[in-house]
Amino acid sequence: MASEVSEKGVVLLGMWASMFGMRARIALEEKGIEYEYREEDLANKSETLLRLNPVHKKIPVLVHDGRTVCESLVILHYIDEVWPAAPSKLLPSDPFARAHARFWADFIDKKVYNAGVNLWKAKGEEAMAEAKNEFIEVMKLLENELGEKSYFGGEVFGFLDIALAGYVPWFGTYELSGGFSMEVELPKLAGWVKRCKERESALKVFPDSEKVNEFLNFLKAKYFL
Amino acid sequence: MASEVSEKGVVLLGMWASMFGMRARIALEEKGIEYEYREEDLANKSETLLRLNPVHKKIPVLVHDGRTVCESLVILHYIDEVWPAAPSKLLPSDPFARAHARFWADFIDKKVYNAGVNLWKAKGEEAMAEAKNEFIEVMKLLENELGEKSYFGGEVFGFLDIALAGYVPWFGTYELSGGFSMEVELPKLAGWVKRCKERESALKVFPDSEKVNEFLNFLKAKYFL
Repeated sequence: MASEVSEKGVVLLGMWASMFGMRARIALEEKGIEYEYREEDLANKSETLLRLNPVHKKIPVLVHDGRTVCESLVILHYIDEVWPAAPSKLLPSDPFARAHARFWADFIDKKVYNAGVNLWKAKGEEAMAEAKNEFIEVMKLLENELGEKSYFGGEVFGFLDIALAGYVPWFGTYELSGGFSMEVELPKLAGWVKRCKERESALKVFPDSEKVNEFLNFLKAKYFL
Repeated sequence: MASEVSEKGVVLLGMWASMFGMRARIALEEKGIEYEYREEDLANKSETLLRLNPVHKKIPVLVHDGRTVCESLVILHYIDEVWPAAPSKLLPSDPFARAHARFWADFIDKKVYNAGVNLWKAKGEEAMAEAKNEFIEVMKLLENELGEKSYFGGEVFGFLDIALAGYVPWFGTYELSGGFSMEVELPKLAGWVKRCKERESALKVFPDSEKVNEFLNFLKAKYFL
């Protein structure tokens, strides 16, 4: 049956607009791993998804030789450990540098998503100003971490780069909602976004910004954001 | 000055009752690493804490040879990578088993703390029944993951064991608040708790249950839980 997941090879269950799904796909693309991609309809989840991730019932789900790995940052670790050499390590080899990358990836999970949702939801001038300031404050910490480097991983587009890359196609919605320009407010990060978008992995994975805007409008209407 | 953190050796900033602080201490004890422990007053955080963890301003903070690592699961990874051999690896060597341990540690962070707070806060019979069911449901998933093993790490008291161990001194407060017995509802997990409490690391780190109950009453009064 088409819905069965093969016992051999790599399958990824994702959803085109998901930050977390995009992380997993970008990691697979960056590593040059061949995989079968399965798009999930999150309003009507497949039996395969519910069976493979019964705890969270969320994408992304990676299946490798019949074994299932869930949660995007766990998947990034797994990919890096199973395919360490191809073509470069996502995590650096020094334990302190690894801890540093993990800390900031965790920071993204704890802060960026909610700050973005608050921007989408803010009603009225005061609430919007607050949401905008909060979002920029969060992103400034990331920009500070980037500093003058090309990528968070230095010369390597690594673990932390991929953790943030999933958000890149959404940055336009944050700018539109908050009425600010990343170029102005976060110039170094805007440079990183540009470099990120030019990567082959991003060209394959990132959706069109118009499509993302439309999808956000759909979400707003559906969930009264 | 006493508040300066040494450029050499290991220092841990913690707080005796914190689940997250206890994780870091148990990992250090299990590895047999000598360290200086500094108790933080979270109502009056030290300048050292604010300087070393300016992003979250939270404990635990590990300082190793003058370099700072924050966030408890990041600290566990760091400890395991810097002291891999002493006396056993916290994370298994197989990438899939590692992903599995990380997934469940992440599950603990996403589900257990809030389920516990909901038990403390629940007012009225209906809300309490709901909070109790939610908590037991979350813990049953962990019990299922434990299965017939001695520890989550099999014969090894490992990464996932330590991630959950920080909650052990609090289990009595959940039982008291919800009016249930782990022994009855979660017998395998209750067995794990017993084995956990008997470990040398736990004997050094776990506070007295009476002291934890008193501390919860203090928190309830302070935050109107």
